[in-house]
Amino acid sequence: MTPNAIDRLVAQLSKLPGVGKKSASRMAYHILDGSSGYAHALAEELAALHQAIRRCGICGGFTETDPCPICADHGRDHALICVVERAQDLRIIEESHEFNGVFHVLGGLIAPLEGVGPGDLAIGKLTARLREHQVREIILALNPTVEGDTTALYLQKMLKEFPVEVSRLASGLPVGGDLEYTDRLTLSRSFRGRVKV
Amino acid sequence: MTPNAIDRLVAQLSKLPGVGKKSASRMAYHILDGSSGYAHALAEELAALHQAIRRCGICGGFTETDPCPICADHGRDHALICVVERAQDLRIIEESHEFNGVFHVLGGLIAPLEGVGPGDLAIGKLTARLREHQVREIILALNPTVEGDTTALYLQKMLKEFPVEVSRLASGLPVGGDLEYTDRLTLSRSFRGRVKV
Repeated sequence: MTPNAIDRLVAQLSKLPGVGKKSASRMAYHILDGSSGYAHALAEELAALHQAIRRCGICGGFTETDPCPICADHGRDHALICVVERAQDLRIIEESHEFNGVFHVLGGLIAPLEGVGPGDLAIGKLTARLREHQVREIILALNPTVEGDTTALYLQKMLKEFPVEVSRLASGLPVGGDLEYTDRLTLSRSFRGRVKV
Repeated sequence: MTPNAIDRLVAQLSKLPGVGKKSASRMAYHILDGSSGYAHALAEELAALHQAIRRCGICGGFTETDPCPICADHGRDHALICVVERAQDLRIIEESHEFNGVFHVLGGLIAPLEGVGPGDLAIGKLTARLREHQVREIILALNPTVEGDTTALYLQKMLKEFPVEVSRLASGLPVGGDLEYTDRLTLSRSFRGRVKV
């Protein structure tokens, strides 16, 4: 017999990734215990989110302006395109400060079992970019999973008709990882991708 | 260089308990990837929360009506009061279906180091309830921590002047726990609270 308004909020919060019923309940009570200012600030950000954010017409990343600040930045290397699965991967790569090119968001990976084919991804848009602009290299920053490998293989073959170099992020032991706890596939990849020192 | 609206939402979500910057970022992108309907539903629940929910004038629990459904329920044992630290503890006990009495929310625990004394808790309200109504037993359902023990001891002494039985929830090994991973204090409590079989 808990108040309905709390139950409804818990139900909504439980839909967030990584949030079960217990965490959602903790969050709801935390919000209730606090001032109503926080609840309203969060509500406003949520309500404004889909109005403020759209997808960049060039790379497909989330942005408040179209084209996005990255695509509009002349200081970046527009001949180097990093292909990612989702818009949030773009954020992670940006935060590493490792990359000064531009991005292309596929919007998913080829997954025949889930009915996702190449036609469902922003691949046509990528080839259009290659035709319209001079591109030197494409880095496939896709997850080292079955779907990521399939998609990378497909793109590799398809991009052969363009005069562009295609590379993929190295796969192997994570920094700080332990050989003892590394799975066989990762270990086999680290061997095949070993670097001379 | 990520859009400000996302950053602001991530900053707000990071304030939730158990949510770090990475989880908050995952949540924000999950909300963005979904329909705007979910973001609006969550925003509405948050905005309405503090208006819909108040504290029960009798027990101090969160409720939509005053007195709360538990305090207004004549089918429950009003001579048995379960004292809890926070309103969310009430929910957990209700969900166990172990208890058919009524509640009293202290609103905290005595913690001298954090400047919380007995005067900051709803103890006066508890003694007022004891004076006004016939109460048979008080169950202290406080966490087995230093603060919980201190508060329980304080209440125990203070309640001696009332003709009421005071008990405390049993402390010991959790169900499914392992002796090997049990700390010394818990083990010592299980010994002292051992039950004849």
